[in-house]
Amino acid sequence: MKKQNKRDLILDAMQSLMSQNLASTATVSDIAKHAGIAKGGIYYYFSSKDEILDAVLERSYSQTIEQSWSLIESKGLDALSKIKQIFQMCVYPDIALHQQEMLNYLHLQDDLNLHHKFLALTIREFTPILTKIIQQGERENTLHCEFPEQTSEIVLSMLVFLLDHTIFACKDSDIPKKLHALAIMLERSMNAPKGSFDFLYAEFEHEKSNET
Amino acid sequence: MKKQNKRDLILDAMQSLMSQNLASTATVSDIAKHAGIAKGGIYYYFSSKDEILDAVLERSYSQTIEQSWSLIESKGLDALSKIKQIFQMCVYPDIALHQQEMLNYLHLQDDLNLHHKFLALTIREFTPILTKIIQQGERENTLHCEFPEQTSEIVLSMLVFLLDHTIFACKDSDIPKKLHALAIMLERSMNAPKGSFDFLYAEFEHEKSNET
Repeated sequence: MKKQNKRDLILDAMQSLMSQNLASTATVSDIAKHAGIAKGGIYYYFSSKDEILDAVLERSYSQTIEQSWSLIESKGLDALSKIKQIFQMCVYPDIALHQQEMLNYLHLQDDLNLHHKFLALTIREFTPILTKIIQQGERENTLHCEFPEQTSEIVLSMLVFLLDHTIFACKDSDIPKKLHALAIMLERSMNAPKGSFDFLYAEFEHEKSNET
Repeated sequence: MKKQNKRDLILDAMQSLMSQNLASTATVSDIAKHAGIAKGGIYYYFSSKDEILDAVLERSYSQTIEQSWSLIESKGLDALSKIKQIFQMCVYPDIALHQQEMLNYLHLQDDLNLHHKFLALTIREFTPILTKIIQQGERENTLHCEFPEQTSEIVLSMLVFLLDHTIFACKDSDIPKKLHALAIMLERSMNAPKGSFDFLYAEFEHEKSNET
């Protein structure tokens, strides 16, 4: 493990405040105190609390992105299996963020700017990853699309926005049907084998059958 | 024309302030003064300036929605022609809002809450309209999808979010390719005849060929 630099100490402090639900009221001085450094030291690295928040988000996300890139390189998996793993990271961002606290914070804050940044980050970081997977799918003859990069961006936007509660005030009971519709649209729009994206709603179907 | 009631007078005043770029700094008193009524009179109808803004937005939008509903009922048009008109309203909201001022205001404000409300409103209001058109397309055998309502919502979300500059900081030069990718995805996902959605990017292609 690398020796922690001051920048990381500041991010750790912020993250710890977030997990204690203290981040929204914390001042830059509070963060400095928590990090055990002088307030001036913070301004050497960040110009505002918002910048610290952004950096915490990006740091915890970068681990997921690294994992996703190594997933791409794994030789044993076909494109459709890789897509499944990537989609689950987007649909269940708590997996991607490695910590429910950060996600709670994003939702609690009612801070649409930060929330948007997170959605945009997801789409931006995953687009080149999904593009590579689609290109593998073309070589394997399971996926076909003329514009892999643009299609990736559109698909990720659909996944990310469609399931975002802050944007769509949709009932939980609507989600399985929406995911089913999405699975069919994805399958057809990428000319994928039938049922390739059924995993998107299968989990909900399972929950439903357990309830009854 | 109906005799204007007080509520409409308030909305007219707000709209006039918006078109003069005075809305962001205007107080409830300013709005009252502009409407020629007492400040207390405003609070009888609205509890805040935000509520007035929402109502202005909904009122100017409702005209578009009414037009769209009558478009649905027009017997002479097939489903694909209707879809084209509806999509253009979503892609070019200045058509839908009947006034560029309102759109400028939405973008200038940097008010993500209001902006989100507008996007959500677009999707909510157009979903039942597009659903009916898809159902007509099924009868005409040009469109096919298992979940017309959910598909409509997904399609509208794609259109609205993908082209929103406040969400995606994308270069203008990327848009035609993105729209082309989207046109293919829509065509395939609804099993529509080839080229049904080419109008989405055709205009941009035209501009491009004029430039060179």
